[in-house]
Amino acid sequence: MGNNVRIITISREFGSGGRSVAKMVAEKLEIGYYDKELVKQVASETGFDQAYVEQAGEYAPEKSSFTCAFSSNATLGALNGMSVDDFLWVIQRKIILQLAEKGPAVIVGRCADYILKERGDCFNVFIHASMAARADRIVHLYGETDKRPEKRLEEKDKKRKLYYRHYTNQEWGMSQNYNLSLDSSFIGVEKCAEIITVLAK
Amino acid sequence: MGNNVRIITISREFGSGGRSVAKMVAEKLEIGYYDKELVKQVASETGFDQAYVEQAGEYAPEKSSFTCAFSSNATLGALNGMSVDDFLWVIQRKIILQLAEKGPAVIVGRCADYILKERGDCFNVFIHASMAARADRIVHLYGETDKRPEKRLEEKDKKRKLYYRHYTNQEWGMSQNYNLSLDSSFIGVEKCAEIITVLAK
Repeated sequence: MGNNVRIITISREFGSGGRSVAKMVAEKLEIGYYDKELVKQVASETGFDQAYVEQAGEYAPEKSSFTCAFSSNATLGALNGMSVDDFLWVIQRKIILQLAEKGPAVIVGRCADYILKERGDCFNVFIHASMAARADRIVHLYGETDKRPEKRLEEKDKKRKLYYRHYTNQEWGMSQNYNLSLDSSFIGVEKCAEIITVLAK
Repeated sequence: MGNNVRIITISREFGSGGRSVAKMVAEKLEIGYYDKELVKQVASETGFDQAYVEQAGEYAPEKSSFTCAFSSNATLGALNGMSVDDFLWVIQRKIILQLAEKGPAVIVGRCADYILKERGDCFNVFIHASMAARADRIVHLYGETDKRPEKRLEEKDKKRKLYYRHYTNQEWGMSQNYNLSLDSSFIGVEKCAEIITVLAK
């Protein structure tokens, strides 16, 4: 890829279609794509459930205090005094660093933009969308719940923001953390993928 | 222009080349371009000096408290009890709203993204760049001073951020406030202009 790019990180708002964009980019460029695969590897290495890793690896816990609930649990010897959240962060970070070594790839979410920032061969992208478009999308994809979709999105955003700030000391969604930020509801999911692909080539 | 776009607002970090990008876009699309022209109009309507309008219309004052220094000065009857900063904001806002009515245009900075947000025909862009690239650029354009260029940039950023937050209650540079955010040091100034033009068409 051009511009010395080997790794494309795609961070995204929940419901923005960022994952679809990421998949399209990886297909167009015929490079690796790490999303669920990354979750699987982290689950396997930590022994945690995949669903748990998916949730806790990007979102602040309910009480958003990153507590040390399990840290004295003898059955989790690997924790070594760390909180479960910190343990998950350490393993997730290690696996992201390893995946980036393997070859050109698209990596979705999980603070990969921050974790890989020293490499100098990353193209960091953020995908967001209007609240209305995201609400439509999650209702279409995941169905209705008792909670209004806007409320569900606000909660997700808040937890992802807290998680990102806690581990990176940066603001999630600040333009300056990315080389490119796209509003998929304005630009369109396919067009987003096209722009990223052209810039990465 | 497509996507129902009539107005392109271009917000930019100082030294990012955002103004050059804006100019190129306006030329490519053959539409109005408001930057110095906007400053001139505000200066003419307020009676303030152009250099003052340029500074005070985008940057928080030295003490960053938006004080009412002149508000009791009888010679500035138009202030009507407002602070000079607020008066400038009101006039600047009015002129931006008027310019947007005139016809398709590119408007640079001055919270135009926020001021025009109700219109629904704006394409809001943010241009930023790495600190190193911006430092190079301002030294090349404006020469060296006693202060390190990084220091000068940090001060400018801080004041623009404060100004934006004060009048919009939003965070300056948050991806979500724009349809597109571009790192001109990664993408290149000309390529930035090209992407914006293609998306606006």
